[in-house]
Amino acid sequence: MNDRIRRPIRWGMVGGGIGGFIGEAHRMAARLDGKFNLIAGALSSDPERARQSAAQCFIAPERTYADYREMAKAEAARNDGIEAVTIVTPNASHHAIAAAFLDQGIAVICDKPLAVSVADGQDLVGRAAKAQRLLGVTYNYSGYPMIRHAKSLIAEGVIGKIRLVQVEFALGWLAAPLEQEGVKQAWRVDPKEAGPSGVVADIGTHAYHLMRFVTGLEVQTLAADLATMVQGRQLEDNANILLRFKDGARGMLWASMVAAGESVGFRLRVYGETGHVAWDEAFPDQLHLRMLDGTDQTLNRGGKLSPQAKRATRLVTGLPEGFVEAFANLYGDYAEQIEARREKRAPDPLSLLAPTGADGVDALAFVEAVLKSSLADGSWVALE
Amino acid sequence: MNDRIRRPIRWGMVGGGIGGFIGEAHRMAARLDGKFNLIAGALSSDPERARQSAAQCFIAPERTYADYREMAKAEAARNDGIEAVTIVTPNASHHAIAAAFLDQGIAVICDKPLAVSVADGQDLVGRAAKAQRLLGVTYNYSGYPMIRHAKSLIAEGVIGKIRLVQVEFALGWLAAPLEQEGVKQAWRVDPKEAGPSGVVADIGTHAYHLMRFVTGLEVQTLAADLATMVQGRQLEDNANILLRFKDGARGMLWASMVAAGESVGFRLRVYGETGHVAWDEAFPDQLHLRMLDGTDQTLNRGGKLSPQAKRATRLVTGLPEGFVEAFANLYGDYAEQIEARREKRAPDPLSLLAPTGADGVDALAFVEAVLKSSLADGSWVALE
Amino acid sequence: MNDRIRRPIRWGMVGGGIGGFIGEAHRMAARLDGKFNLIAGALSSDPERARQSAAQCFIAPERTYADYREMAKAEAARNDGIEAVTIVTPNASHHAIAAAFLDQGIAVICDKPLAVSVADGQDLVGRAAKAQRLLGVTYNYSGYPMIRHAKSLIAEGVIGKIRLVQVEFALGWLAAPLEQEGVKQAWRVDPKEAGPSGVVADIGTHAYHLMRFVTGLEVQTLAADLATMVQGRQLEDNANILLRFKDGARGMLWASMVAAGESVGFRLRVYGETGHVAWDEAFPDQLHLRMLDGTDQTLNRGGKLSPQAKRATRLVTGLPEGFVEAFANLYGDYAEQIEARREKRAPDPLSLLAPTGADGVDALAFVEAVLKSSLADGSWVALE
Amino acid sequence: MNDRIRRPIRWGMVGGGIGGFIGEAHRMAARLDGKFNLIAGALSSDPERARQSAAQCFIAPERTYADYREMAKAEAARNDGIEAVTIVTPNASHHAIAAAFLDQGIAVICDKPLAVSVADGQDLVGRAAKAQRLLGVTYNYSGYPMIRHAKSLIAEGVIGKIRLVQVEFALGWLAAPLEQEGVKQAWRVDPKEAGPSGVVADIGTHAYHLMRFVTGLEVQTLAADLATMVQGRQLEDNANILLRFKDGARGMLWASMVAAGESVGFRLRVYGETGHVAWDEAFPDQLHLRMLDGTDQTLNRGGKLSPQAKRATRLVTGLPEGFVEAFANLYGDYAEQIEARREKRAPDPLSLLAPTGADGVDALAFVEAVLKSSLADGSWVALE
Repeated sequence: MNDRIRRPIRWGMVGGGIGGFIGEAHRMAARLDGKFNLIAGALSSDPERARQSAAQCFIAPERTYADYREMAKAEAARNDGIEAVTIVTPNASHHAIAAAFLDQGIAVICDKPLAVSVADGQDLVGRAAKAQRLLGVTYNYSGYPMIRHAKSLIAEGVIGKIRLVQVEFALGWLAAPLEQEGVKQAWRVDPKEAGPSGVVADIGTHAYHLMRFVTGLEVQTLAADLATMVQGRQLEDNANILLRFKDGARGMLWASMVAAGESVGFRLRVYGETGHVAWDEAFPDQLHLRMLDGTDQTLNRGGKLSPQAKRATRLVTGLPEGFVEAFANLYGDYAEQIEARREKRAPDPLSLLAPTGADGVDALAFVEAVLKSSLADGSWVALE
Repeated sequence: MNDRIRRPIRWGMVGGGIGGFIGEAHRMAARLDGKFNLIAGALSSDPERARQSAAQCFIAPERTYADYREMAKAEAARNDGIEAVTIVTPNASHHAIAAAFLDQGIAVICDKPLAVSVADGQDLVGRAAKAQRLLGVTYNYSGYPMIRHAKSLIAEGVIGKIRLVQVEFALGWLAAPLEQEGVKQAWRVDPKEAGPSGVVADIGTHAYHLMRFVTGLEVQTLAADLATMVQGRQLEDNANILLRFKDGARGMLWASMVAAGESVGFRLRVYGETGHVAWDEAFPDQLHLRMLDGTDQTLNRGGKLSPQAKRATRLVTGLPEGFVEAFANLYGDYAEQIEARREKRAPDPLSLLAPTGADGVDALAFVEAVLKSSLADGSWVALE
Repeated sequence: MNDRIRRPIRWGMVGGGIGGFIGEAHRMAARLDGKFNLIAGALSSDPERARQSAAQCFIAPERTYADYREMAKAEAARNDGIEAVTIVTPNASHHAIAAAFLDQGIAVICDKPLAVSVADGQDLVGRAAKAQRLLGVTYNYSGYPMIRHAKSLIAEGVIGKIRLVQVEFALGWLAAPLEQEGVKQAWRVDPKEAGPSGVVADIGTHAYHLMRFVTGLEVQTLAADLATMVQGRQLEDNANILLRFKDGARGMLWASMVAAGESVGFRLRVYGETGHVAWDEAFPDQLHLRMLDGTDQTLNRGGKLSPQAKRATRLVTGLPEGFVEAFANLYGDYAEQIEARREKRAPDPLSLLAPTGADGVDALAFVEAVLKSSLADGSWVALE
Repeated sequence: MNDRIRRPIRWGMVGGGIGGFIGEAHRMAARLDGKFNLIAGALSSDPERARQSAAQCFIAPERTYADYREMAKAEAARNDGIEAVTIVTPNASHHAIAAAFLDQGIAVICDKPLAVSVADGQDLVGRAAKAQRLLGVTYNYSGYPMIRHAKSLIAEGVIGKIRLVQVEFALGWLAAPLEQEGVKQAWRVDPKEAGPSGVVADIGTHAYHLMRFVTGLEVQTLAADLATMVQGRQLEDNANILLRFKDGARGMLWASMVAAGESVGFRLRVYGETGHVAWDEAFPDQLHLRMLDGTDQTLNRGGKLSPQAKRATRLVTGLPEGFVEAFANLYGDYAEQIEARREKRAPDPLSLLAPTGADGVDALAFVEAVLKSSLADGSWVALE
């Protein structure tokens, strides 16, 4: 619990109207620890929905905006204007919105992916640097305490040099052609809103980021077999990807929206010379550590863990935490960075684990390499 | 999501200073959905700790109190005084504090157990009735969506008439004599703070309430074998209890603080004529439904569930919820009841699932029957 | 693998005709390691079924008997007569059959319970002693490697002095009144065949024996709440039992035939001062060891285990063993004892883990104490 | 239980001396149901070890051979010669041994892989056809009841048209350079004994066969990334493989000997248009069936299953079966085929599920395609 925060951060939101999923997820994450106060918003591009949504979030009418440009300008002009904004719109609009706020000196917390091209992502990183403001990208699964503990264990060499990585993020909900049935959430396979990639950009990048976060490994080359399983779909909905890492390790990454019967199947295993760690997002409080010598341990959130994991933990072992708590850890990290800037001090170094614009760009480079490999029928493509 | 709330409930707290566990648990639960605004508090009986804790919770100095009596009076006198207060002090003080606020017309949300005797509990229920104010008791495990779903399934007769109940709440943390080592949380085995019962009052009542909540069964008689396993301990730390229900069903209830190696082992199984349901708090998003015909189903939070379960759910299947979310469901229910009173309308009937003062008294009657049976070397004692 | 056996043991069987479950279970257990050769049998009291069953087991017609008395006499008279016989008939007939073979100097392996009264059981133990022949009782779950490992861990003090035991054996198959529908296996609730106890004798004694085997604890007194849940049933089908052990530990034992939806729910947990072990027969290759300090280990069959567990293991970790393998461990132990006698040497001390007539008598004493307590409405009764 | 067998099959063995793992595994599998009688053997190429091993298996000295050629000839010449032989020697010797017995009219049950080249495998299939004798290849995991049930479910269309397959067989034991430390079992990475492939031939073919068995899909092309993680090792020890099936489905296959901390990690998931099945060999009695509509079922061995699964089941649900029982199902199938030939009748069609020489050749074609793709840096290679 950070002792220095004496008032909540003044916070706004673009996108995330009531009824959608992701906006409320961000709001719960931000509210959990009481460090953010939502006071301004352009919650929908539909003015009436924007108004209703803002009212339900207790946002005052005068700080309810129909347009993000107006919001950025108006808030920047106020003495009590927002210090940070969260962007939860479809991918293709991220760049313009994030640019508008960063250019006004307002910190940006952007849902993933950061943009729809590496170039756009880099542009945002540049703007954030120029504005000296936070640019966070919510690869939120990296907020799970046991994921942070896995990162610590690996960094300490507990499983030895890494040889193999197996990561998968499998959803089933788009096994049916929902986008052809007018389901709004299915914009994720509409290139106009999602950009040039479907499942890879949407959740493949979650898998990629988590693997990078935990292992610290860099992909050297990859070979991708993309498929569109649902007839008439415009973007790929399944990705089978082979990975070769810079230091000789190998990996497999599977991302799917058509894994019928999976709800959210996000699983990571990392094998080193002397053991492995395994984590399944469905049971996030447990990390399995199994060693070559036969030792088979379950490490439980709340137990004797690394400082990184402890800082990300609220409850004792046995009282389960979940998705919102992990997400809230990112918000806690971002809050610390925003507070530190306000207080002209260095942030807690552990808060820097939260994913940044640079992580967002790295994930976009992964998407581009995957698309390139796929166009070349799965040839090995370097990740740059 | 309730559409009618247009401002958060003005809310205060007695007990729950920073550093303790249970106060922050209540605060997270209240904050999660944004329906409560913490604006007043007597967070500790130690004035300095009360002041610091209040500051960290962003409570204004003029609404930071060193004494709950003063707080009740002062808040009742304000136009913008609190509408509800949460009490999270040791058991023996619950009655006096709750009485002070109810008598001022302020709704009370009290941590369990409601009091240390049936008589005191009944007194509070009477005061709440007279004041026409909410008296909630946070048997918070009943907020888990799959527990509410289990209740629905059983009420619908999915497993037939109930024959057997197995429930256990096993902790390990007091396997060592922590109270003799000055650990503050160990007041739970100090009769001055905890009242005449240790493990039964502390967590046995959680098990009892959950079982009653899910099954609807009433205990007719019980036989209790209480034990104090740690030398020098003043209250019982293990309870093995046999149950006979009014309609012929039988049960076993185990509550322990000395189950070394258990973190929070809260498990419930209910067997009917044609099948059973099983739930383990460590994996709260799953409910197992196994039938005499061999069908073995896992029912997942977020799936096709009863209205009671859906109302208590925030995330899609596969994104795990946990303890705080379940706790927040009670706060959501209480918020609805407080709002409804403010708006002079009937509350959503589903909000009435949240445990009340009457449930608190029922649990105290259970404690008294257990103590009575134990004194009679485990003879059958009626629960009245 | 015992190096000294140079030919299989000549073996016979009473009961266990083709089509029943338990006879084939014994045969598979005996065949698995190739140490027994089935050459004689009275497999059914129905002569035609006895004949057909024997033929299917490749038993020669001249050693196929319609009557166990004839079989005992004829086999004892042959130079190549059987050295051991397995008895798998309903409980009430065990005593007469076992006596007939022991009196002829033939080793007896008897399905549990050994008899239907302590007196009868003691009589058999006396006859075995007089004949200097093996009298084994197949409490076969004690053959599981991880159960033997649990016994070793506890004996070594890994979890400290035992405080609490939780054991349950819950079946669902008699949740319906099968005995009233003519199902043959349902003799287990027919007092003429099963004796004076239903679920307690049938599977409660399995739970009792396993708990005793693993912990080494002795029950001092017990309090039993027996119930007959199915209307018209003649014997109890559910038993909720409280245990007090000689050294102050406490326990709960649940045995049920009416736990609808359970297939074979046999679970044991033992809590000491510093940790606990937990085992579930559905996943018998794993033993969980969880310590007060938070350490949470899964011990896997095939890993670095005690000599007792290793001796009872055939396959590497990860290749699952099951019920037959555990059962075969008892047969292996009995084979070693029979061989040792034949070879006039002491048996491998580890083979003496297999349950004997004395264990059978102890279990019968448990049944009698339970029935006595139940008649006294659950009063505490000493186990003698 | 097959009613027609009136005597056990006369059976011999080449390889499988006492002390090794795989020989005893075959013997337990053959003994479990009592259908095979081991009466001849050349259990080791070391004559003394052959003699001792045979004695321990109760094989008579006159039928104990030092050489498989002599054994094939001598047994074929006897009236009571063996009807079938099992071959459990290193891969490179399979062809010569199998040919010797088939040419003498003796049925062959060969451990996998059938040979070290497609050509050799095809040669054996030809010899078996000419001799009109059984040629079985023990891809024994296909004997698991729930695997056979999965095959039935998929064939019935329960999960719809298959879109995705994920299969993995991961071992950790060769994470250390055991072959350089003289461990005998490590011949699996010695090209002289294992042939041109390490992990792919050894366990990759298990994964390939199981996937083919369950899905019925045919691989059209594959892309393989092979790696040798342990320095100085002569054959590949990790294989990451992408699969494209003839009807458009896609798959990933992972086989590893260097997955430190895995004991035997054999897992299969098959995703169709409307749901998926998932199976983990560590818990082989359960098959998970999860549907797009959210239904999540555990199908348990012993329950209401397909005839294929029932035929492969011995015990009721809840009494676990394991590796030996699954293996014994293959032996049961082969016994039925041998019996049927002896009795001049058609075998039970369900016995034809057991893998044959043709399956062995198919698996060898997979190995060759994998090696070819690897040489071409992971280019897509057709499987022919």
